[in-house]
Amino acid sequence: MEEKALKELLASLTWEEKIGQLVQLSGDFFHADQLAVGPQKKLGIDQRIVDQVGSVLNVTGAEKTREIQERHMEKSRHKIPLLFMADIIYGYRTIFPIPLGLGATWNPALIESAYQQTAEESKAAGAHVTFAPMVDLVRDARWGRTLEATGEDPVLNAAFAKAMVAGLQKDLLNGGGIASCVKHFAAYGAAEGGREYNTVDMSERRLRQEYLPAYKAAVDAGCQLVMTSFNTYDGVPVTGNQFLLKEILRKEWGFDGVIISDYAAIQELIAHGVAVDDREAAKLAIEATTDIDMKTPCYAKELEPLIEAGEISAELVDQSVYRVLKLKNDLGLFEDPYRGASQALEERVFLTEEKRQLARKVSAESVVLLQNKKNVLPLEPNKEKILLVGPYGDNQELIGLWAVHGQREDVVTIKKGFEKYLDSKHLLYTQGCDMLEDYTFLGEFGATKDQIEQLGLDKQMKEKELAQALSLAKQADTIVFALGEHTMQSGEAGSRTDITLPKIQQAFLQQLVELKKKTVLIVISGRPLVLTKEVEQVDAILQAWFPGTEGGNALADIIFGETNPSGRLSMSFPYSVGQLPLYYSEFKTGRPLTSPTHKGRFVSKYLDSPNEPLFSFGFGLSYSKVDYSGLTLSNEQMTETLTISVNVKNSSARPTLETVQLYIQDVTGSVVRPVKELKAFQKVTLAAGEEKKVSFCLDREKLKFYTKEMIFAEEPGAFIVFVGPNVNETLEASFELV
Amino acid sequence: MEEKALKELLASLTWEEKIGQLVQLSGDFFHADQLAVGPQKKLGIDQRIVDQVGSVLNVTGAEKTREIQERHMEKSRHKIPLLFMADIIYGYRTIFPIPLGLGATWNPALIESAYQQTAEESKAAGAHVTFAPMVDLVRDARWGRTLEATGEDPVLNAAFAKAMVAGLQKDLLNGGGIASCVKHFAAYGAAEGGREYNTVDMSERRLRQEYLPAYKAAVDAGCQLVMTSFNTYDGVPVTGNQFLLKEILRKEWGFDGVIISDYAAIQELIAHGVAVDDREAAKLAIEATTDIDMKTPCYAKELEPLIEAGEISAELVDQSVYRVLKLKNDLGLFEDPYRGASQALEERVFLTEEKRQLARKVSAESVVLLQNKKNVLPLEPNKEKILLVGPYGDNQELIGLWAVHGQREDVVTIKKGFEKYLDSKHLLYTQGCDMLEDYTFLGEFGATKDQIEQLGLDKQMKEKELAQALSLAKQADTIVFALGEHTMQSGEAGSRTDITLPKIQQAFLQQLVELKKKTVLIVISGRPLVLTKEVEQVDAILQAWFPGTEGGNALADIIFGETNPSGRLSMSFPYSVGQLPLYYSEFKTGRPLTSPTHKGRFVSKYLDSPNEPLFSFGFGLSYSKVDYSGLTLSNEQMTETLTISVNVKNSSARPTLETVQLYIQDVTGSVVRPVKELKAFQKVTLAAGEEKKVSFCLDREKLKFYTKEMIFAEEPGAFIVFVGPNVNETLEASFELV
Repeated sequence: MEEKALKELLASLTWEEKIGQLVQLSGDFFHADQLAVGPQKKLGIDQRIVDQVGSVLNVTGAEKTREIQERHMEKSRHKIPLLFMADIIYGYRTIFPIPLGLGATWNPALIESAYQQTAEESKAAGAHVTFAPMVDLVRDARWGRTLEATGEDPVLNAAFAKAMVAGLQKDLLNGGGIASCVKHFAAYGAAEGGREYNTVDMSERRLRQEYLPAYKAAVDAGCQLVMTSFNTYDGVPVTGNQFLLKEILRKEWGFDGVIISDYAAIQELIAHGVAVDDREAAKLAIEATTDIDMKTPCYAKELEPLIEAGEISAELVDQSVYRVLKLKNDLGLFEDPYRGASQALEERVFLTEEKRQLARKVSAESVVLLQNKKNVLPLEPNKEKILLVGPYGDNQELIGLWAVHGQREDVVTIKKGFEKYLDSKHLLYTQGCDMLEDYTFLGEFGATKDQIEQLGLDKQMKEKELAQALSLAKQADTIVFALGEHTMQSGEAGSRTDITLPKIQQAFLQQLVELKKKTVLIVISGRPLVLTKEVEQVDAILQAWFPGTEGGNALADIIFGETNPSGRLSMSFPYSVGQLPLYYSEFKTGRPLTSPTHKGRFVSKYLDSPNEPLFSFGFGLSYSKVDYSGLTLSNEQMTETLTISVNVKNSSARPTLETVQLYIQDVTGSVVRPVKELKAFQKVTLAAGEEKKVSFCLDREKLKFYTKEMIFAEEPGAFIVFVGPNVNETLEASFELV
Repeated sequence: MEEKALKELLASLTWEEKIGQLVQLSGDFFHADQLAVGPQKKLGIDQRIVDQVGSVLNVTGAEKTREIQERHMEKSRHKIPLLFMADIIYGYRTIFPIPLGLGATWNPALIESAYQQTAEESKAAGAHVTFAPMVDLVRDARWGRTLEATGEDPVLNAAFAKAMVAGLQKDLLNGGGIASCVKHFAAYGAAEGGREYNTVDMSERRLRQEYLPAYKAAVDAGCQLVMTSFNTYDGVPVTGNQFLLKEILRKEWGFDGVIISDYAAIQELIAHGVAVDDREAAKLAIEATTDIDMKTPCYAKELEPLIEAGEISAELVDQSVYRVLKLKNDLGLFEDPYRGASQALEERVFLTEEKRQLARKVSAESVVLLQNKKNVLPLEPNKEKILLVGPYGDNQELIGLWAVHGQREDVVTIKKGFEKYLDSKHLLYTQGCDMLEDYTFLGEFGATKDQIEQLGLDKQMKEKELAQALSLAKQADTIVFALGEHTMQSGEAGSRTDITLPKIQQAFLQQLVELKKKTVLIVISGRPLVLTKEVEQVDAILQAWFPGTEGGNALADIIFGETNPSGRLSMSFPYSVGQLPLYYSEFKTGRPLTSPTHKGRFVSKYLDSPNEPLFSFGFGLSYSKVDYSGLTLSNEQMTETLTISVNVKNSSARPTLETVQLYIQDVTGSVVRPVKELKAFQKVTLAAGEEKKVSFCLDREKLKFYTKEMIFAEEPGAFIVFVGPNVNETLEASFELV
């Protein structure tokens, strides 16, 4: 449809029809031939609005979406199709690792491919919009949604944000891909104490410098929608925050796409205490240019009365409606309301061999080898007896909490992966210990007491399994213990104050290590766990996140040396929860740990803990040894650009992927600057024995920051460049910006 | 001296003489007849400036200060006396509890008396200025200087700030008291992760609403000096932060007294990375109106060259010099450079019986009875066998880290206190367990490895003591275990990631509780510790902070029922370090724990911990039962004022002190408001059986906050009033502000 026709369409709509476009309801409204009465009553939305509703939440599948759309189109006076939006976070049917694992690949190009595949599956299933990527910066592992974040760094997160949007929206305006809704704008990851939905408070400087860049990258990459976050910023919940939505997002960044509230967030303005009732909540949200009200009656009930009372302008609402119509039009829905979705297409594109291979590759690149004492890994196939044990040993729950459309049956377990490398003589398996001691917290999802009691192993089995495992362990040469968090212990509202491994697993590990066998841990988790004790106990640790559909294959590939591990942490792993929040790019203090003027007690530190994390940002081992040398700057002074190069040499006999990282320190500024900031990185392949020169080009843009006067600019003076395999092991050189 | 004469004096000074007034050096510069050469060389300060120096750090004692002053006056061309400034934080010779304990008295009037007594001792000892009070708001118990803070609440902290300044400066301009230097301006208590000297980042809204009020109260109470804090605010270290010092402190608040840097903070602008060298550091600090440079050569070396180069104006420096001269003049130092200090006076006023009695009273009011199962306390004297045990049982280290001029020999130990109530037949004592397992961290203060190894009990003694204690415990009816943190585990740079009791003490406690005797803990600590396990293990817990010179007597008075405990927490005690930061006045979220719309998982909480603290703000038991009833508001609507009254009845047979607390909630505002905010409190005496009506007057001023537009104003609408003995157990009523 041409712009003119679209505007005419807008002009021809009644207020009911217009406001319907700004309302999103979930699938339970669309069950029967008749619209369901139950949910509608509960929400208190008038039938007239329900008939005109503009978008649907979390209904997917070609059959279902086609059916709903068809029925809707029959009734729609103007034939305005529904938008189907869904939580498709890290895969639709083919599930990739959780985003924290994707962050650990340090490979945005690869992740762009993954999201392109996801878009293909999603589109076949009738989804038009995905609530992805989530690009919230996170520095507190207590927060459950750490799982959905790519990490702690603005530059790395921005690179992934751009790649994910590009992958999802490939050829979007020509019928390809699906629309991307970046979330959660803004600073959701900074919830106080890591407690879900808690207050966020920070300076505008920190907001702009550290938290906004990834959202900005997504907007610049053309994401069609933005979702507001649940948190406050500067005392105002984002869904009603004009500074963030109108000033920054719309005006400064020029975003003219659709802003959608997070689930029920408009009505939550009342609980937040900034609106007295639905009407005031609706007014605050629409005035902040929040276009779509997800799952509350505020817009449906209140926008028209607000216009009639002259409390908001009709034009404001028209603008929102136009943005929604424009999105539908850009997606081609007026021409094809199904956008090509069909069951036949689903069958053709879901979980193809090609997609499985890609998932396996992504998963492999996401796994981080944290420790490998005496090079215990890789293991040699069919050489020794290997006991695979633990609650994740043969478990299909490798896809994590928010793989809404993933199917556990598709998942290759670790045991299945191992079986490709080991015959039955060499592979021993038993679960050994249970996942948790107590499953009570699952009651949160409505499980009854009886149901909860039936979770996990029963009492008798528990003891039998432990005994069996210890007996097998004694026969084994090497023990691989696949353990970690329960799926429900991370993800949304999965905040924890204690981020060690479940106690029952710790206790069993202690029993295993007393056997003094070679011991390898595979850690499945939605966050950086505290592994301080385990580092002392075991030989090798593979941090595997929730590795997705092909997790078992990827892990087996790494463990048996078919793949050289290349994952690098995108988030610091703490020694203890008492170090949080924790991030490498901390600001300089007046009394640094290695102060030339202050010694002993009076420096910035803890009495009982290092300042450093247990495992640093950028850290990850491989089976190769890569040496860095010859850090060279093209000039001691930088005017416009500077070329920085370094030689990396694979001194091992196997090919490897090396992530070369470049950090800077702006030595003196008008404001205090971080001790190190990531500015660039390259993941390069190195054949056995190969040496490569890796070059980076630094330009003035990359040296910009928010100066004392809040101007985004670079300041002349001394800089230090650090290049290395992680933030802590670097070569250094310096230059002067003139 | 008249103002005119003072101005003439200023005009008659050379630059060297002027700049000298802006330099503060420590005692080591004033040791010998000749000024010491060593420290001077180390700092790199020119002899000419040293001769003209304006103030001296941490030299006290009438004899020493008189000697230095006398020598100085002989040499001073214009007879400008030295100012003697010192760390006198919670007592000079008579040591009161640490400020966190003072906060727990909820009795500002009492603390005003205490600080008046401190001022009398300090003045006799030749101190002119004390670096007190510290009024930093603190909500993270990891921070070591929690010890020096009165707690987590802006209103309570402000009340203490005012009282402490009033106490110290009583009759200051008529020769009484000593000058108060409030510190650390501003927001030092918000160091990230509770790590000393770390970055502070917050919104201006939070700064003004929560962190500034206590400093403002001190300034309004007339404190003569303000000390800058080590931290940054909005990216700029406070010592060079014009927004905080010039805009807020000088301009908005009208403060025209002396601003002094914290120790070496001007030179630390270089380490912070906002100054390239001493000169730039000096320039940033003087431009921010920091008057005195404590212990760095920046001002001494660089101010004159800066003026000569036209980089700063002469007038700027003149203003600073004038402020210092004016302070000296206001203190009467030009008339009496010793300000009455003498050894005879010291003897007369130090640690008098009256002061000891006051210290005992303050200490008693600071102790918080956290738990008293089956009313195990008070104990009856000479009725049963009581074992006193633990590293603090007979230990004079009850005065904490920053009682610089206190003397351990003066301290009444807990054992000494017990001996007044128990004869030797009924009192068993042995140390039992050692304070720490490992004293290595004391090396921070320069202790050698050999010295460290000799700390605590030797290996043989350790075992003997434990055996002895267990054997005595078996004979005892009740065990009182006095345990806690080592003095050096809190205070400046005493940040800890693990804030449980030392492991060795935990282990011994476990052995004791297995004996199933009545068990009472006395907890000595500089911070809220995590006592989650201990709450389950023991019958009674007395939180005693570092209780000061008379600590042993005060604790014995409480334990044996002579004094009814009345302390109330001024800071929340967490279940675990994973809950930090923690404070009762948290902001409303969109999904509160008790949300009417969201149930189950998706509310603001942790999966594995309550949101609530283990012990709440305002909490503390007594031996009495006090009932609250009849909460009455004078009106359902408030225009100018509202009278709120409640009946409190002591239904016990002993007199008690009850702290009645009034909180409000501003239900809806233009910004999100706290769930509860303390607005008023009264500590009232109640005779046995007595009932009293306690009334509060709420005015509009108390309902003001920083609105969305950052205007300090009240907003009409609904309010809830909560009155009770602590933040959690309250009666409720509501009113409307019109």
